[in-house]
Amino acid sequence: MISSLSNGQIKYINLLLKKPRARKEENAFVVEGIKMFEESRTHGNLIKAYFSEEFYSKKEKEEPEFFNDLSYEIIQDSIFKRISDTISPQGVLAIVEKPSYDLSNVLANPKASLLLLENIQDPGNLGTMVRTAEGAGFTGIILSSDCVDILNPKVIRSTMGAIYRMPFVYVDVFEATLREVKKNDISIYAAHLDGASYYDEVEYAKKRGILIGNESKGLKETTAKIADKMIKIPMQGRVESLNAAVAAAIIMYEVARQDRFS
Amino acid sequence: MISSLSNGQIKYINLLLKKPRARKEENAFVVEGIKMFEESRTHGNLIKAYFSEEFYSKKEKEEPEFFNDLSYEIIQDSIFKRISDTISPQGVLAIVEKPSYDLSNVLANPKASLLLLENIQDPGNLGTMVRTAEGAGFTGIILSSDCVDILNPKVIRSTMGAIYRMPFVYVDVFEATLREVKKNDISIYAAHLDGASYYDEVEYAKKRGILIGNESKGLKETTAKIADKMIKIPMQGRVESLNAAVAAAIIMYEVARQDRFS
Repeated sequence: MISSLSNGQIKYINLLLKKPRARKEENAFVVEGIKMFEESRTHGNLIKAYFSEEFYSKKEKEEPEFFNDLSYEIIQDSIFKRISDTISPQGVLAIVEKPSYDLSNVLANPKASLLLLENIQDPGNLGTMVRTAEGAGFTGIILSSDCVDILNPKVIRSTMGAIYRMPFVYVDVFEATLREVKKNDISIYAAHLDGASYYDEVEYAKKRGILIGNESKGLKETTAKIADKMIKIPMQGRVESLNAAVAAAIIMYEVARQDRFS
Repeated sequence: MISSLSNGQIKYINLLLKKPRARKEENAFVVEGIKMFEESRTHGNLIKAYFSEEFYSKKEKEEPEFFNDLSYEIIQDSIFKRISDTISPQGVLAIVEKPSYDLSNVLANPKASLLLLENIQDPGNLGTMVRTAEGAGFTGIILSSDCVDILNPKVIRSTMGAIYRMPFVYVDVFEATLREVKKNDISIYAAHLDGASYYDEVEYAKKRGILIGNESKGLKETTAKIADKMIKIPMQGRVESLNAAVAAAIIMYEVARQDRFS
């Protein structure tokens, strides 16, 4: 049983929780909670599991076979609470292999519905977008390199498991990638306050990408210009803009609605 | 200039930032940032403003008339940072009078479009819903008494100013209030995973309320039963539910879309 914060494995978990670079170098990230653990186990990308003493002793009595064929360690309750990123930890934490997706595969999908994200900063927003994208039937997410790390624990938590299933690719030169997106016959619709059409007056192409910009600054002008169309969401009252995850959701679900009604 | 954390006004601000009961008893809440301050000033509900030394000395040089007819105090920078609820404070904080709305007025609106919220717990979700509700042209929000406090600083921040403009009422007996809503010829649509119709197959009544439940537990069964219709948002992949603020946004914007196209 691990009983010290200075234990090497605890330090390693902390590093993966806190440092995007560590996650990148180690090709791994940390998930918390029984659901995320179970999904990762099913998924086959689980590297190692960690349980709090309390969780372990209870589970061991109720369902000892739970621990079969599992690489795991037990952590003293007080230490577990200290490393957990959540307020009420469930006593389950896992190191999971980072999924790796190929941009060309994401673009080659004959039913490509992509979310194209530029400089999204809020982890909750990004996680919510991943979750909503799966719900709306989107097939992949392309992110500019200055977006928050999608393997950040707060993002992971907000995805509610969608992180395992939604292909994502970070790209170094976002504008060049958008041009590549277009070369693959994927039409790009940029959410923009100066959009010429409302988001629900547009007939979305069979293959499409929805382009969403930074929470406070929106899209860079040069990025927005690459889009085939700029679309806007009508706003009443004195609202100047919507939350980025909300705007993305409204547009993605309009795309899904058109797919269902066509 | 205020230079100590034990100053009475600092203690009062802290109380209003942290204690829902204090906000209720004092009929006041705290906003941060220049924009929220300006809006409150225009609105006429500003009680007192507080500026960091840095903000004050800069503004005093650039625009001394800014401080005319204003009740304010200056706070030492280090103390300001300690009381601010934000990571990068702008040096502006204000105590604002709590708005007060009458349930009967909210219900009597001939164009009533209401958001009906049961046990919403996440401040960011609630704030985002207030912001989106204004954008979608909704006319008021009714909240069960176990929802998070709408005057919580995190909620206020997420509303991006909509808190000043969106009427809201907390009610003690939510179910009884929903029955009153219906008596006012307002049809209630409950977002529910077991909904009989998709949210975009329903023709919303001229006066309507959208009922949204708790983030993890959804609506109580007894509450959902009061609704005229249960509606669901179609979900692909293995997503079990959407974020509550996202679900509310998708439905509110479908209502707004039908209004525009009818």
